[in-house]
Amino acid sequence: MTESITIAKPDDFHLHLRQDIMLLNVIQHCRNWGRVLVMPNLSPNPVLNGPDAMLYKAEILEALNAHGFYCEPLMTIQLTENTTPEMIFEAKRLGVIAAKAYPKAQTTNSDNGISDYHSMDLHYALNAMQECGMVLCLHGETPKPGVFCLDREKEFLEIVEDYAELYPNLKIVLEHITTEAAVDLVNALPENVAATITLHHLLLTLDDVVGNTIQPHYFCKPIAKREGDRQALLVAAMQGWNNKFFFGSDSAPHEKKNKECASGCAGIYTAPVALPLLAEVFETYAVPPMKDLLEAFVSKNGRDFYELPPNEGTITLVKEPWTVPYNTYDYVVPFYVGKEISWRIQ
Amino acid sequence: MTESITIAKPDDFHLHLRQDIMLLNVIQHCRNWGRVLVMPNLSPNPVLNGPDAMLYKAEILEALNAHGFYCEPLMTIQLTENTTPEMIFEAKRLGVIAAKAYPKAQTTNSDNGISDYHSMDLHYALNAMQECGMVLCLHGETPKPGVFCLDREKEFLEIVEDYAELYPNLKIVLEHITTEAAVDLVNALPENVAATITLHHLLLTLDDVVGNTIQPHYFCKPIAKREGDRQALLVAAMQGWNNKFFFGSDSAPHEKKNKECASGCAGIYTAPVALPLLAEVFETYAVPPMKDLLEAFVSKNGRDFYELPPNEGTITLVKEPWTVPYNTYDYVVPFYVGKEISWRIQ
Repeated sequence: MTESITIAKPDDFHLHLRQDIMLLNVIQHCRNWGRVLVMPNLSPNPVLNGPDAMLYKAEILEALNAHGFYCEPLMTIQLTENTTPEMIFEAKRLGVIAAKAYPKAQTTNSDNGISDYHSMDLHYALNAMQECGMVLCLHGETPKPGVFCLDREKEFLEIVEDYAELYPNLKIVLEHITTEAAVDLVNALPENVAATITLHHLLLTLDDVVGNTIQPHYFCKPIAKREGDRQALLVAAMQGWNNKFFFGSDSAPHEKKNKECASGCAGIYTAPVALPLLAEVFETYAVPPMKDLLEAFVSKNGRDFYELPPNEGTITLVKEPWTVPYNTYDYVVPFYVGKEISWRIQ
Repeated sequence: MTESITIAKPDDFHLHLRQDIMLLNVIQHCRNWGRVLVMPNLSPNPVLNGPDAMLYKAEILEALNAHGFYCEPLMTIQLTENTTPEMIFEAKRLGVIAAKAYPKAQTTNSDNGISDYHSMDLHYALNAMQECGMVLCLHGETPKPGVFCLDREKEFLEIVEDYAELYPNLKIVLEHITTEAAVDLVNALPENVAATITLHHLLLTLDDVVGNTIQPHYFCKPIAKREGDRQALLVAAMQGWNNKFFFGSDSAPHEKKNKECASGCAGIYTAPVALPLLAEVFETYAVPPMKDLLEAFVSKNGRDFYELPPNEGTITLVKEPWTVPYNTYDYVVPFYVGKEISWRIQ
């Protein structure tokens, strides 16, 4: 009999959906998620306020409708040094649940990002978020120019510590963590600080990016680090019911021509394989039975941190190998293309 | 009046020329060198013995002839665990001046490389080299699988130390060094140990490869390291007349389609820009006047270490900016394409 597990319908707390044709293409992979937290760094027009977010939400709902299924888009705005308390309050009223802060010019579409995390304007906005209960999502790399790529997350951690102390009632998510140091800090800080972990950072180190050949489809920000860091992330992700660590895919589609070129974009497109490959990772590394640990990571911890109700329904994964196809994803190359994954969605 | 410098005709002590059409294409950039040390890792048939080397030399001379100029190819063979003392002596008789040792499967065309640097067979071959005065060129990365990419050179250094002690009369060149640790070791070891330094390792760190976008044309083995390492290489290269450190470009042409793809080859094609860009680097970083320091690095230190006579003639560089063209190098993308270089060959 085929092995299978059934878990509460999961959520993805960090997802890039883009717009237009790309949105229509990639949204098909939201089918298995109850909710997805949608990132605001659109180009050329990022989502900067509540009305922007509502417009984007409508576009997403239309795309879902075109595919004939529903998944709840949780909307975010981008926090910049121009975000006012009024913008925060208005966005909150319109249903925006989080604001995402990017360090200036450190990742995709972040030229309007933050250079001074301690500016007064930002302080007012963060106070407003704390007051109205909006979550702060941090891309955790220092905005200082010239810091070595492997040190940028570590150098950012002092900002997380400062914020945790300055805003004790602000919920803070350190996104897509990649280092043992980040795991340790999130564990050490109070309950209001949590972290998302991606699928690809559970699988990759820098050696997969440039250790043998150079692999643009394994290149993302923050870049994958050492094996010791990966091990720390595996331990953090497999703790069970602990709302400090939960899944955010950071799935980020880029056209193949913008990856396989002289100067390739950062971002890994994991959405097409996320749940099956997570099941494989948990089967490989988690203390068995893996079902409860996987369910905590993808279906419970994030929802608890965000104070959201359980999703209705379940999803079943069966142990049946399949090969990630090259040709059905059009012009975006998915993670693990051509490789076999031992679990699939039923 | 335009600034200019005239130096003794230089040598490149580490060059990949390939074969066939690629050889015919890339050899044009040997015009400014008196001698080039030609690497033996051809695919599918590496240069493993003296007769192989003579055959390859004839092919190179024919290509030079087709372009109508002369540059002396200094021939090498690849040292493997199957190289016998007889093969060493025969190669030496035929004029081969060095043997290159690659760690197994760590770089381009190295599947036949060495996994055990202390095997008895290798010991006999190294003794033969010591006896007949053949230089040993080492690709300095550990053959141990699973070592983190940034640690592979450092882990190899103990082999260099062992060899320096075991074979005190063997001339050893640690090729294309990338770390402060390697500079320190070469400085600390006796006169029989030297190192080559490439142009690209004087300019790049890992941040140029994956710090912003992912850049396959800046990807090589050993991969560029931290800024502190780059600074140590600059100091080593700019010491003046000291035959411990000299120029070896490691210029390694790969077709564009094998670089800008899902799994890109290691190797940077610096030959088209090497001398002008070296002049720019020395002007930027060397204690002025840079002429003597540049001349020591490219025209004297290597020749002294290899005990070769001075080249006849000189070469003059003038300070006149030019932009590295995209379209004249066919299907191989040169280093610094599209960028301006402030010096040119007269």
